[in-house]
Amino acid sequence: MTPTRLSTKEDYKTLLDKYDTWMFDCDGVLWNGDRLVDGAVKVLEILRTHKKSVLFVTNNATKARPSYKKKFDKLGVEAHVDEIFGSAYAAAVYISSVMKLPKDKKVYVVGMEGVEQELAAEGISYIGGTDPADQTLNSFSLSSFTRDPAVSVVLCGLDTAINYTKLAKAFQYLQDPSVTFLVTNDDSTYPSEGGLLPGAGAVSAPLKTASGREPLSIGKPASTMLDCIKAKHDFDPKRTIMVGDRLNTDILFGQNGGLSTLLVLTGESIQTRARITHVEDIEGPNASSIIPEYVTNSIGDLRVLA
Amino acid sequence: MTPTRLSTKEDYKTLLDKYDTWMFDCDGVLWNGDRLVDGAVKVLEILRTHKKSVLFVTNNATKARPSYKKKFDKLGVEAHVDEIFGSAYAAAVYISSVMKLPKDKKVYVVGMEGVEQELAAEGISYIGGTDPADQTLNSFSLSSFTRDPAVSVVLCGLDTAINYTKLAKAFQYLQDPSVTFLVTNDDSTYPSEGGLLPGAGAVSAPLKTASGREPLSIGKPASTMLDCIKAKHDFDPKRTIMVGDRLNTDILFGQNGGLSTLLVLTGESIQTRARITHVEDIEGPNASSIIPEYVTNSIGDLRVLA
Repeated sequence: MTPTRLSTKEDYKTLLDKYDTWMFDCDGVLWNGDRLVDGAVKVLEILRTHKKSVLFVTNNATKARPSYKKKFDKLGVEAHVDEIFGSAYAAAVYISSVMKLPKDKKVYVVGMEGVEQELAAEGISYIGGTDPADQTLNSFSLSSFTRDPAVSVVLCGLDTAINYTKLAKAFQYLQDPSVTFLVTNDDSTYPSEGGLLPGAGAVSAPLKTASGREPLSIGKPASTMLDCIKAKHDFDPKRTIMVGDRLNTDILFGQNGGLSTLLVLTGESIQTRARITHVEDIEGPNASSIIPEYVTNSIGDLRVLA
Repeated sequence: MTPTRLSTKEDYKTLLDKYDTWMFDCDGVLWNGDRLVDGAVKVLEILRTHKKSVLFVTNNATKARPSYKKKFDKLGVEAHVDEIFGSAYAAAVYISSVMKLPKDKKVYVVGMEGVEQELAAEGISYIGGTDPADQTLNSFSLSSFTRDPAVSVVLCGLDTAINYTKLAKAFQYLQDPSVTFLVTNDDSTYPSEGGLLPGAGAVSAPLKTASGREPLSIGKPASTMLDCIKAKHDFDPKRTIMVGDRLNTDILFGQNGGLSTLLVLTGESIQTRARITHVEDIEGPNASSIIPEYVTNSIGDLRVLA
């Protein structure tokens, strides 16, 4: 299947009429690092003027939604907290609404403040995380470890304060097969100013290796994230489009959820400013198996609808 | 193939005559934690009396050989530093003798003092490891990172002070495909008093995940360890026997190297004192695909030769 390349005003008008709910990946679509994508703000305004639902879907789990909203504010992009879906939030909603974790049970967190804040907002008890007792490079001994029998979930996300004590404790819980193993997302790396850094998928890798278990991943491309959005918003998948710059997360996420998909080619490596996805990735002999329904150069192209 | 079960004095006498070099795994064979296996000291004495070469082959990479020897001393087991082969030492020998790393090149170490000491003993320059600059839980920024152009090897072993800064730095080097990626060993866990803890294979997992690279593993069951022993000792594989308690490390190591193999059933989980390997693992319908040449209950069984 070849994606439909959009270029004329009529193409974009047809798209606008066809979809009521627009889900956006943020980094690489609306901005790259701290640089806005040209026209992105205008296009979001146009969608809102046409009474479209606008949702932001990110795998970033280091920030809770109110903190993540500050990024929008800083760049002058209108966004409301209830329009933002991060994988920490989705994990918390999954634990409270899908798992229905009893109130006397707890989550052991390998992760940062964002995960803790989202768990707290859903009324879920947790230990670990940023607890000073777990912020240590001292050697870990099982003789000084007391297992908390209330822990029935291990949730791991990106944690830049990862250390052996956290990993060893989480591993003790994971040796009990009745303890659920969740990861906010499985991205092996993430782009930062200056290059790639190890992502949530790398931080959780020691737990997978030691326990021999495969976690349930919440973020894109998993459908768990979409289940979480469904729990909070009414939308018709047939009239919903996912806009993203990455085939194996954003576009696959849309396809897994039965949504239409729009690939934009604005995603850049922060380090080299090289494009994340090229036309050759979706057309020709070396094309990916993940092909979007539509493709356009930039979300800014929809400005012609103003 | 069914292993030969040894039980009579004649069985053990035949074995003694057949092999000149005896390689021993330590934990589970000579001792369990701090408890000597009954008769092990006596059997080593008998082997030495018969002018056999005795070598100790361990994946433990946290200690250099002189430190590891202290364990033998403490338990009253005769051993000489040049008889001990740990995976940190084998990694250092591999880098100096097989890779022949030029003197102006360096190793970036994710690991502990044992790795550093073995590298230093082989005259190999290194950075990272226990450097206080890398012992931090502070957030890591690429803007404050200066790549050392001399680094051409990343060596990762068990590191109980593992943290994001170390992982992020190692990952920067590993993105250059000309940098060699080594791990001392790939054990996913290791037994400690009170239970299992994440092993070297778990500690290196974030680097594998982030880089998408498979490291060369030095320790058992890899043949690199045997290459290292060969570089230091003359032995005829046909007259050499590897004695161990684990099929997928010790016995496979022996088989990979064309050695004869003797399985002992003394390996215990420190936590539960449950046996590591059972007769059912090598005989009957659920047997492993890794079958030793010989099996005996305990190395102590060879005492009858006194």
